[in-house]
Amino acid sequence: MQRILSTELAEHLGQIVTVSGWVHRRRQLKSVGFLIVRDAAGFTQVVTHPAELRHLSEESVVEVTGRTTANAQAPAGVELTSPTVRVLSAVSVPLPMELHRPTLTASMPTQLDHAALALRHPARAAALRTAAAATAGFRAGLERRRFVEIHTPKIVASATESGANVFRLDYFGRPGYLAQSPQFYKQLMVGVFERVYEVGPVFRAEPHDTARHLAQYTSLDAELGFIRDHRDVMAVLTSVLTAMAHAVAPFAALEVPAEIPAVPFTEALRIAGAPEDEPDLAPAHERAMGEWARRQHGSEFVFITGYPMAKRPFYTHPDPADPRYSNGFDLLFRGVELVTGGQRLHRYEDYVAALHGDLEPYAGYLDGFRYGMPPHGGFAIGLERFVARLLGMANVREVTAFPRDLHRLTP
Amino acid sequence: MQRILSTELAEHLGQIVTVSGWVHRRRQLKSVGFLIVRDAAGFTQVVTHPAELRHLSEESVVEVTGRTTANAQAPAGVELTSPTVRVLSAVSVPLPMELHRPTLTASMPTQLDHAALALRHPARAAALRTAAAATAGFRAGLERRRFVEIHTPKIVASATESGANVFRLDYFGRPGYLAQSPQFYKQLMVGVFERVYEVGPVFRAEPHDTARHLAQYTSLDAELGFIRDHRDVMAVLTSVLTAMAHAVAPFAALEVPAEIPAVPFTEALRIAGAPEDEPDLAPAHERAMGEWARRQHGSEFVFITGYPMAKRPFYTHPDPADPRYSNGFDLLFRGVELVTGGQRLHRYEDYVAALHGDLEPYAGYLDGFRYGMPPHGGFAIGLERFVARLLGMANVREVTAFPRDLHRLTP
Repeated sequence: MQRILSTELAEHLGQIVTVSGWVHRRRQLKSVGFLIVRDAAGFTQVVTHPAELRHLSEESVVEVTGRTTANAQAPAGVELTSPTVRVLSAVSVPLPMELHRPTLTASMPTQLDHAALALRHPARAAALRTAAAATAGFRAGLERRRFVEIHTPKIVASATESGANVFRLDYFGRPGYLAQSPQFYKQLMVGVFERVYEVGPVFRAEPHDTARHLAQYTSLDAELGFIRDHRDVMAVLTSVLTAMAHAVAPFAALEVPAEIPAVPFTEALRIAGAPEDEPDLAPAHERAMGEWARRQHGSEFVFITGYPMAKRPFYTHPDPADPRYSNGFDLLFRGVELVTGGQRLHRYEDYVAALHGDLEPYAGYLDGFRYGMPPHGGFAIGLERFVARLLGMANVREVTAFPRDLHRLTP
Repeated sequence: MQRILSTELAEHLGQIVTVSGWVHRRRQLKSVGFLIVRDAAGFTQVVTHPAELRHLSEESVVEVTGRTTANAQAPAGVELTSPTVRVLSAVSVPLPMELHRPTLTASMPTQLDHAALALRHPARAAALRTAAAATAGFRAGLERRRFVEIHTPKIVASATESGANVFRLDYFGRPGYLAQSPQFYKQLMVGVFERVYEVGPVFRAEPHDTARHLAQYTSLDAELGFIRDHRDVMAVLTSVLTAMAHAVAPFAALEVPAEIPAVPFTEALRIAGAPEDEPDLAPAHERAMGEWARRQHGSEFVFITGYPMAKRPFYTHPDPADPRYSNGFDLLFRGVELVTGGQRLHRYEDYVAALHGDLEPYAGYLDGFRYGMPPHGGFAIGLERFVARLLGMANVREVTAFPRDLHRLTP
């Protein structure tokens, strides 16, 4: 018999149907037993004899044929009665954690050790569905604006952003490195398509064991040409975030202002009460700016613009009015840095100057600028960080299927 | 003035407009000069004084303001007259290749060395747009069928498919490997979402320098649970290919039969004239099957089913009727293998037997099966191979932005 999903039961009231899924929970009362079957769409309550439950175990995969019967207390008002249960895969060992409680009580290491099981918990699965929805929103927002999807190399001949925190590998007997970002390649592809994006893994050999950092994460990258300056990039980013907020609406409410407040770096230092010669915002200052944006503008987002050039990578475009500062920005989301972006250099001579003549490692990259590049800029959103912040999860590992960090290379 | 695209010129007939782009070509006649400006959408013909052209050079980035004037001989029937040309980025060196000819005449090594330039050629850019469209079609076809997008680790503790052709890296002082496929992870995620897909890079330390192989390529992976057997996987694959064909229609015509012909492996050997004890199809046999499918069924695709177990990976599900053969299949596209797929083992005991007790390297993977997995299967499509075959390009490097191979780690 053709299987139906738990969410389709109500359409088949009074009929004999088949559902399939995992034994989520068994509940045994004196004269009746309940079997809760979990499938990708939700839950089915199956009413059976208490004795029948004994042959089953949680997480076994079953196929249940029975009659859909109205019951106001069952999920979605229907349950299956007079069932025949066929076991497709039996679980014969105790589970390292219980999946049927509203939240997983297992420790984070236990969850990560047994990720294949822990991710089945509805809350953890929902976080990954949120990530998928956010990614779809990112793409939809950009596709509408003529951005073209690209795929760029993840093995490179020299470190992208800096020599630090880079994974080194053996590339057919030569040294190779895992790309820390698609930065150089997305810039070059502006020369081809004007507007490009990439969703892909980036790699940081992050030596600190924190709740915010992973050795591999998913970067949502975009880059666009023929801009006036970084403000055009910020406008595209705002519209993309709006598309992402729309896409994640089934999971979490998120409002993106039509115009996100933007504060110059030096003013942000003053608002946050930081010394005026600080070259960057410390986490405490970012939190203060997040609170300020919420209080003053009712916004969960705030742009900080014009970071000092000293703290930005070499490809950053200076502020023409004051070259000590940059046309680079960060976007804070609920008081945490979520996005880094800005205008880039686009003239070959400017790169030669910025690299102080150390051109050889960048030959293929500089080629693009030598042969004509328009004013351009872009941004990168950390997917896992966005989802963690959106769902109020303290640790980015809670929203990552199989995280990689200083200590963890499995499963 | 707000820039418009070359394709929007006709909507502004008689008006003063601004277009931006790259100097694609200059043509100097006795009394008139033509400047062809290339943008992401197409070309604009600018009519100017011959003397004006001398200050410009191919691939310089320009902004041109002029009046749109009807001219049947110009692209889309309009051209810009009385122009003012502003140079945004000047090119001051000779180009290593000419971009304005219908096909690039530069050798493949020259194209690859100067990829940032070569990819601007309309034919090469179109191939990458085709790849983007194919990817969008893949996603659309699967999203419609409840597949959820996942992101899985690219650094793993042991080789996925086999110990050969794997890149080794230093993972915080321990050995790590680049994932040869998301195989194990997509299977585990069937336990979470039932149906999953991933678009991402995979890595093969391919020691052969061929026109078909890359060290990094984009794999379009899907996996689904609660299947009857591999035929359900083949049906999903057929519908996904139909969605991909629809998406690439602006670039290339491709017909996917409602039912792709499927030939059992042993019969394929006979049709292809191969010895009946061959364990696999050689390239010549694949070509013969491709011709047979076109001749007998008018199909560019043909499934070969039931490959011998000996030639398939350990997670392959055997054919219950004859366990020497598998529930695995290949899909040939125009006589070349494009997709590998099949039903997988889903019972823990079957994995223990298949791995001959060598369980330790697979602990995190086996966890999923220990805790209940449904019958499932899936497939992987090589994106670059699909696009190359679709566009009739002999070398997969022609459809890859920045290819990685035995000899090439830059740009």
